[in-house]
Amino acid sequence: MLVINKINPLKAKIGALKRKGLTIGFVPTMGALHEGHLSLMRRAGRETDIVVVSIFVNPMQFGPKEDYKRYPRPVQQDLHLCRSAGVDIVFSPSDKEIYPFTARPFRTSPQASDTLTRTFVDMYKLTETMCGKSRPGHFRGVLTVVNKLFNIVEPDIAYFGQKDYQQALVIKQMVTDLNMDVQVKVMPIVREKDGLAMSSRNKYLTPAERQEAICLYRALLKATELICSSRRPVSAVKIIGAMKGIINSVRHSRIDYIAVVDPQTLEPIKTITYRQVLIALAVYIGKTRLIDNFLICK
Amino acid sequence: MLVINKINPLKAKIGALKRKGLTIGFVPTMGALHEGHLSLMRRAGRETDIVVVSIFVNPMQFGPKEDYKRYPRPVQQDLHLCRSAGVDIVFSPSDKEIYPFTARPFRTSPQASDTLTRTFVDMYKLTETMCGKSRPGHFRGVLTVVNKLFNIVEPDIAYFGQKDYQQALVIKQMVTDLNMDVQVKVMPIVREKDGLAMSSRNKYLTPAERQEAICLYRALLKATELICSSRRPVSAVKIIGAMKGIINSVRHSRIDYIAVVDPQTLEPIKTITYRQVLIALAVYIGKTRLIDNFLICK
Repeated sequence: MLVINKINPLKAKIGALKRKGLTIGFVPTMGALHEGHLSLMRRAGRETDIVVVSIFVNPMQFGPKEDYKRYPRPVQQDLHLCRSAGVDIVFSPSDKEIYPFTARPFRTSPQASDTLTRTFVDMYKLTETMCGKSRPGHFRGVLTVVNKLFNIVEPDIAYFGQKDYQQALVIKQMVTDLNMDVQVKVMPIVREKDGLAMSSRNKYLTPAERQEAICLYRALLKATELICSSRRPVSAVKIIGAMKGIINSVRHSRIDYIAVVDPQTLEPIKTITYRQVLIALAVYIGKTRLIDNFLICK
Repeated sequence: MLVINKINPLKAKIGALKRKGLTIGFVPTMGALHEGHLSLMRRAGRETDIVVVSIFVNPMQFGPKEDYKRYPRPVQQDLHLCRSAGVDIVFSPSDKEIYPFTARPFRTSPQASDTLTRTFVDMYKLTETMCGKSRPGHFRGVLTVVNKLFNIVEPDIAYFGQKDYQQALVIKQMVTDLNMDVQVKVMPIVREKDGLAMSSRNKYLTPAERQEAICLYRALLKATELICSSRRPVSAVKIIGAMKGIINSVRHSRIDYIAVVDPQTLEPIKTITYRQVLIALAVYIGKTRLIDNFLICK
């Protein structure tokens, strides 16, 4: 497994592989890898010739009061996991390599986007709701760095997890709108035994909070039950009410949002009839913000 | 010369040429071609194997009160000029091909950006001054369409005219910031015999206005004379004052802006010493907005 820190040698290596006719599968990550990431890497390994993983904690997608500084960075463990998942190339650039524009060191002070880069990629509507509403500028940071990474890696297929449903959706939309030459695949959420969606941020939870964190999954199960067991259309108000009941019964929980929306437009659905519906939520357990979702086809 | 209207056949054709090892030179235009455009095409022909010209009047870069609807579209004449300049492929897409997102017909009503596309590319600082200040959203439209066209055409070298200095600068910045794999070359302004910078919008001028329009060039000559004849630093105030005098002596002129700025950052320069300086201006002659600039190395 090659570990490359700089853009130019990475491009040279990938260029040589592509000229041999090999296909490139790409899994962009922020490290702190878990089974969710590894499932993407293994899938890439089955579908493409060369698997490239990027590990980069992207400062541009964190808000000034968010967890950029304390985000876990277990470098050696991540490299070990990549090796075990059959990854061919790990791209692990410095902040400066991705954002050469800035002069200041990143980890000592959170940075405003406009000090990291001049150019940005953003999106109307789809970024303005759900996580985009709670985290202003977040998707601008995501879209900009993913755009850059796609241009650097030039993958045939890129893999994202469904846990970050809105992220995957806006990336697919960007690829379509900007005529980018990459196929985006979204893979199922990988869960712990008790149903908690795997996330690098689960590491922040105390043992007590870790127990409480399953309320997101339980709320989603309850919503599914209400939708699937009813023969008549169910109102979003009823679903959200039931989910709130479950989450609020947990001591250290605070709901950021619960969304019952169209899976393509993310526009609210008032009554669930026969269409697909996305139930997504973000909940603070203590100081840790967790997200989860179910895509339900009635 | 091939004329292609659709993205997929264009990509197939260019892909086949690239696999043969041929290099692609690209000249993006809005049509209404003049000697300025042709000079870019001929330069591309000398430097690359295949010359691709796009002709697309981009609705996203026009403001709601601007000249999108009446912008000249002399299709047959443009194709004839491309042929005479040795162009290999003309890409002339419909509005719908570039902005499939929208449902409404474009020419009947000017469109807000967010009805044309979800994703957009924009830039901090460099787009907020000069033409960006006079034309809010203009560079968002330019950057988005050029990003799309670069992804569609995948050129080795793209050619732009220096008349749109700020446009060329922001496109170069985008290519750097987003790690795009294209070299951007900026070519000198081509002028009429009397000094007027060639522009598709010169066609809007009445014969009287056409005479008056040389005031932009005369003002730039005057600025150059002031800067180059003085042994001591010259203040921007003095230069701008002299330029205003020349332009305001013309009957149908109205100054939009005169900028004395750093050619890289576009930040105002108060006193011209030994650095490079960009003198740029936008002036209405009647209802027609014209721009011009000199890059001066003292």
